[in-house]
Amino acid sequence: MAKSKTHVSHRQYDDEESGWACMNWFEYMLVVVLASLLLLGALTLTLFWALYYAGGFAWTEEPARQFNLHPVLMVAGFITFSGFSLLLYRICRCCRRIYVKLFHTIFHALAIPCIVVGFIAVLDSHNLADPPIANFYSLHSWMGLVTMGLFALQFVVGFFSFLILLCCEGATAAFRASLVPIHASFGITTFMLAVATCLTGLTEKAFFKLSSKYSEMPEEGIIMNALAMVLVALGILLSYAVRREPFRTQVKTFVTERL
Amino acid sequence: MAKSKTHVSHRQYDDEESGWACMNWFEYMLVVVLASLLLLGALTLTLFWALYYAGGFAWTEEPARQFNLHPVLMVAGFITFSGFSLLLYRICRCCRRIYVKLFHTIFHALAIPCIVVGFIAVLDSHNLADPPIANFYSLHSWMGLVTMGLFALQFVVGFFSFLILLCCEGATAAFRASLVPIHASFGITTFMLAVATCLTGLTEKAFFKLSSKYSEMPEEGIIMNALAMVLVALGILLSYAVRREPFRTQVKTFVTERL
Ligand code: HEM
Ligand code: HEM
Repeated sequence: MAKSKTHVSHRQYDDEESGWACMNWFEYMLVVVLASLLLLGALTLTLFWALYYAGGFAWTEEPARQFNLHPVLMVAGFITFSGFSLLLYRICRCCRRIYVKLFHTIFHALAIPCIVVGFIAVLDSHNLADPPIANFYSLHSWMGLVTMGLFALQFVVGFFSFLILLCCEGATAAFRASLVPIHASFGITTFMLAVATCLTGLTEKAFFKLSSKYSEMPEEGIIMNALAMVLVALGILLSYAVRREPFRTQVKTFVTERL
Repeated sequence: MAKSKTHVSHRQYDDEESGWACMNWFEYMLVVVLASLLLLGALTLTLFWALYYAGGFAWTEEPARQFNLHPVLMVAGFITFSGFSLLLYRICRCCRRIYVKLFHTIFHALAIPCIVVGFIAVLDSHNLADPPIANFYSLHSWMGLVTMGLFALQFVVGFFSFLILLCCEGATAAFRASLVPIHASFGITTFMLAVATCLTGLTEKAFFKLSSKYSEMPEEGIIMNALAMVLVALGILLSYAVRREPFRTQVKTFVTERL
């Protein structure tokens, strides 16, 4: 029985669900639209904050404004690109797996230059300041290192296992299948960690920049808190979307479908 | 077929896994022992910080020291008690479900007084200070409200659905089964959100208390960063432990087992 089931096609899978099709369709649209809005909203709010309140961008000639690239690029890479990359697995239920994998890889590959330049921007803004600011003292910076490490690990392992190993498809199927739940679990964990890192970074920046004025709830403080709430909402929504199983009393997950 | 499968007992489930028993046993022990150490470690570090660096505890007579109850009780409730409560589902694979549910409820019920007193402590420390400190301006405080709200929702829905509805066991089985994955998903999300809230709270406290000395990496700063790293490790480990499926190419999850 188990054998024959693994050959069930994607279409069949959808048919099996038809009892819930209507409810699933509504929930599906809600999650996808809301998540997309929040992913773009987070980037827009960060950009707005950087341009309107923090004086815009610069490169090494002006370290204080070079810093502003850090939050914008980190949110772009770790939240917007990575978030859409995770969401893909929810959006594309009946596309061919290889396309989903390809776009998943492309989105994450786009995140890399953002993260690298965002990291250089904050390093420069510390080292080129006069007097220079110490590096890696805050818990935000330690969390940042852990988040970037996990991201790199996920990317390398995922790239190697799910794309390169495809050249000997048959021989590596069992291995790849056993990696899927681990990769998925660490993927959403890395996203949650990135959200937490952004939240501590925002907290720091709010206290650095607004200090005691923060408690009087100035406009800028409210914008930063709103950005934080968007990030929190994304953490809740995406971990729900990715882990969501179709509502059925007896859930069968065929991992082979997710290779 | 579906009908007969739902009557498979817990023992049977364990037997099915026997091929992986050895590896699973090792991984199981590692996760459970490490998670327990980290859960107790987080509480110990917070207590140590409060007693050794922050001057210990007081009640309304001394708002500045009353504040110290806030991190300790929040970590106790949202991290240590809640964490053990989640871990139970990983520890007790072959105990009777009703015991697991009972202990899960008891641990979460123990978290409630901690959270309530921890919340009162921070409110008092703001309102009784001279001059009073503003409330609910920081993104940490907004996140705290969201976290407490989600926790309360989970508790009320879980208590009602999984314990009270047991009185008409047969009639509510399908409903309860459909709630399980939602409750589990929001449970781990609430835990991750609590971790993120603690991290922003710690960041604030580090900058309030150490201000510019923080960047010179004093002992106290390192202790706070270490506590943050323990919380990050817990976030990674617990979301892994709870979501972990046995390694098999074809995973079947019988939700009925998890009622
Ligand atoms: C996941 C995304 C992020 C990562 C991985 C990250 C990583 C880092 C790292 C590694 C540092 C240390 C640089 C150094 O010490 O030289 C740092 C510094 C900093 N970051 Fe981020 N960051 C992220 C998002 C943000 C966001 C959204 C903000 C919001 C404004 C922010 C604000 C800051 C600030 C103010 C500093 C300088 C103070 C310090 O060293 O803690 N970060 N970041
Ligand atoms: C999940 C756990 C936590 C929750 C739900 C939480 C919740 C809250 C809330 C609602 C407030 C606002 C009180 C007011 O404005 O009157 C607050 C304030 C505060 N909390 Fe926490 N907290 C948590 C953990 C922590 C931890 C671990 C620390 C570490 C020291 C901390 C540090 C602070 C500080 C410094 C304030 C005062 C400044 C402010 O209003 O942001 N919190 N917390």
